[in-house]
Amino acid sequence: MLKGHQSWVFENRPVILSTGTVVGPDEGEGPLAEDFDIVHGDLTVGQKTWEKAEKALLEEAAQHALDNAGLTGGQIQFYIGGDLMNQIISNTFAARTLGMPYLGIFGACSTSMEGLALAAQLLDSGAANYAMAGTCSHNCTVEKQFRYPTEYGSQKPPTAQYTVTGAGVAVLGKTGDGPVITSATIGRVVDMGITDPFNMGAAMAPAAVDTIQAHFRDLGREPGYYDLIVTGDLAAVGSEIARELFEKHKVPIEQTTYDDCGLMIYQRDKQNVQAGGSGCGCSATVTYGHLLKRMKKGELKRILVVATGALLSPLSFQQGESIPCIAHAVSIESGGLYA
Amino acid sequence: MLKGHQSWVFENRPVILSTGTVVGPDEGEGPLAEDFDIVHGDLTVGQKTWEKAEKALLEEAAQHALDNAGLTGGQIQFYIGGDLMNQIISNTFAARTLGMPYLGIFGACSTSMEGLALAAQLLDSGAANYAMAGTCSHNCTVEKQFRYPTEYGSQKPPTAQYTVTGAGVAVLGKTGDGPVITSATIGRVVDMGITDPFNMGAAMAPAAVDTIQAHFRDLGREPGYYDLIVTGDLAAVGSEIARELFEKHKVPIEQTTYDDCGLMIYQRDKQNVQAGGSGCGCSATVTYGHLLKRMKKGELKRILVVATGALLSPLSFQQGESIPCIAHAVSIESGGLYA
Repeated sequence: MLKGHQSWVFENRPVILSTGTVVGPDEGEGPLAEDFDIVHGDLTVGQKTWEKAEKALLEEAAQHALDNAGLTGGQIQFYIGGDLMNQIISNTFAARTLGMPYLGIFGACSTSMEGLALAAQLLDSGAANYAMAGTCSHNCTVEKQFRYPTEYGSQKPPTAQYTVTGAGVAVLGKTGDGPVITSATIGRVVDMGITDPFNMGAAMAPAAVDTIQAHFRDLGREPGYYDLIVTGDLAAVGSEIARELFEKHKVPIEQTTYDDCGLMIYQRDKQNVQAGGSGCGCSATVTYGHLLKRMKKGELKRILVVATGALLSPLSFQQGESIPCIAHAVSIESGGLYA
Repeated sequence: MLKGHQSWVFENRPVILSTGTVVGPDEGEGPLAEDFDIVHGDLTVGQKTWEKAEKALLEEAAQHALDNAGLTGGQIQFYIGGDLMNQIISNTFAARTLGMPYLGIFGACSTSMEGLALAAQLLDSGAANYAMAGTCSHNCTVEKQFRYPTEYGSQKPPTAQYTVTGAGVAVLGKTGDGPVITSATIGRVVDMGITDPFNMGAAMAPAAVDTIQAHFRDLGREPGYYDLIVTGDLAAVGSEIARELFEKHKVPIEQTTYDDCGLMIYQRDKQNVQAGGSGCGCSATVTYGHLLKRMKKGELKRILVVATGALLSPLSFQQGESIPCIAHAVSIESGGLYA
C-alpha cells in the first residue's frame, strides 16, 4: 500500500522464508565468511568463462534457498532478478534453468533491494503466494565489462571499489517463520555531476541519503526506529560522504547504528580491495547471509537496507555523461519465531 | 491478484489515462504514421549521439503523455521503464530528467508489457495513485550495439528484423476515462536452441505461444474473448511459426484476429525492413499509438498485447549460447467513456 509519495507499507508482512548466499575466494577470506552458505575457493566456479561462473553462483544460491524453504521451483510464481551484465544475462540464463515466470530488473547494485521490494509488494497485495528475488556479481565479469580484464592487471586509485563475487537469493512467502518485510522506499535518480567511475561511492552517497530521507518522510519515522541502517556499497569514501550529508540535512543518524555492506564484507587493512566492496552481490550476500543471521540470533530486530546503484554504462561514461545513481530501501523486521 | 500460476487479474481496473508516442522517419513513412504523436524526419533528433537521440525520444513521449493526462511529473509515484541499451541508459538518463521514483526493468522487446503489467499491478493493489510505464529503441543504437554500426552498411538476411526508432509511454491512474487494464500474464524464459541473432522472430515465437497458452489456462479463457491478439515483434518469420505452434498446441486462434506489431508498423513491400519491425519501441508505439486509437474509435473492445523479447547479449552469442526468449501479455479493454 502506498505511503507518502514513494514508499510502500506491507500490512500483510511477507516473510523471508529462506535465503541462499554463495561467494568467491576473496569474500571467503573476509570477516563474514562464516555467514555464507557456500564459499568457492576458485573464481572460475568450474566454468569455462567468467560469465558462466557468475550465472553458476546465482543458480547455486537459488537452489540453496529453495531447498532451505522446502520448496520446488515450480511452486514459485515469480522470480525477480537482475545484475550488472549487459542485458542482465546472468539472471536471464539462470531464469532459463529455473523455469519460473521471470521479471527482469536493472538497478545496478541497487538491484538487490529493488527485487526484494517488488517481491514483497507482490506478496503483500496477493499477486503471488511465493516469490523469489535474487542478484549476483563476479569480480572478473564486471572488471572486464566496465574497466579492464583482470588479466591486464591495471592499477586502481584508492577510491575505487572491489566488485564482490557472490550471489544472494531470498525466497518469500505470505506466511511462515522468518523475518518480515514491513516497508520499502523506491528511489529517484540522483546525479551530482560526478564523472569518475573509480569513485562510485562518492557518486552514490547522495542517492542513498535522498532515499533515506524520503523513507523517514513517507513513513513518519526517525532513524532510531531501526537497530541498524546499512547502505549497499558506498564503501569508505561514499559512507563518509553519506555521514556528512546526514549532518548537513539534519538526519539524526546518531539515533541508530549506521554501516555499509561494502565496508563489512572485506577486511580492508589486509585485503587489497581499495575503498571496499561493491557489485550487485555485495548488499545481497551481506543482507541475506550476515544480517539475517544476526536477526535470527536476536542481535538485530529492525533493519533498513538501502542498496545503492551507479547506473552508468561504459558508453555513457565515454560520451562524457556524469554518473546517475539510485538507492532503494527495504525494512526488515523480526517476525514469526524470530520475534 | 494472483490468478492461476503466473497471471494477475486487476479487479480495480486501472486506467490508461494517456499515452505519448514518438517515432523516427521510417516509422513516419509506414502505414501507422497518422497514429503517432510526434514523427521525427531526422534520426539524430537534433542530438550529438544516437544514444542521446534515443533518450530524447523517450523524454518527448513522456512529456507528451504527462501533458495529455494533465499531470506533472511530480504527481507520478513510480516510473517503470527499460530498453535494449547496456545498463538501460536511455531510461535511466530520461528518469534523471523526469525526477520520478524509478524502477528499472529489462525484458528486451518485452519490456513494454513488463512495465505496463507492473504499473497496473501497483495501481490495482493501491501501491500507487499514478504510475508511468515506458520504453524506447533507436535503429542506430541497437544496430551499433548488437550488430554493426549502420554507417558500415552491412548486408542482412531476409529473416532479420528492422529495429524501430520510437518511444511509447503510458500514464496510468486508478480512475478516469480511458481503456482499462484487466489482467496480465508474466512469461517464463523459453529457449528452443536457436542461435542466429538474424532470426529473432523464430527464436521468440515459442515464448509468445507459451505465454498465450498460460494466459488462457490461468484465466480460463479462449482466444475468442479478444477482438485482437497481437504479438510484439515476431515479424514475418516468427508470426508464421507462432501460427504453426497455435495449431500444434490446439489453440483455437481462428476465434479471433491474430496480428503482430512488427508486421503492422512498416509497409514491408515498399520499405527495406526485411522480415519486419522489432525493438522495444515496436510494440510500445503500435499499442499506445495505433491500437488504443482503434479502441477509442470503438473498432476494438478487448485486446491482448503479447510483447516478446530476445534476451541475448552480444557476449552470450559470442560464447555460443542460444537465444533465451520471453513474452509478457497484458489485456486491455474498453472502459470509461470508451466502453
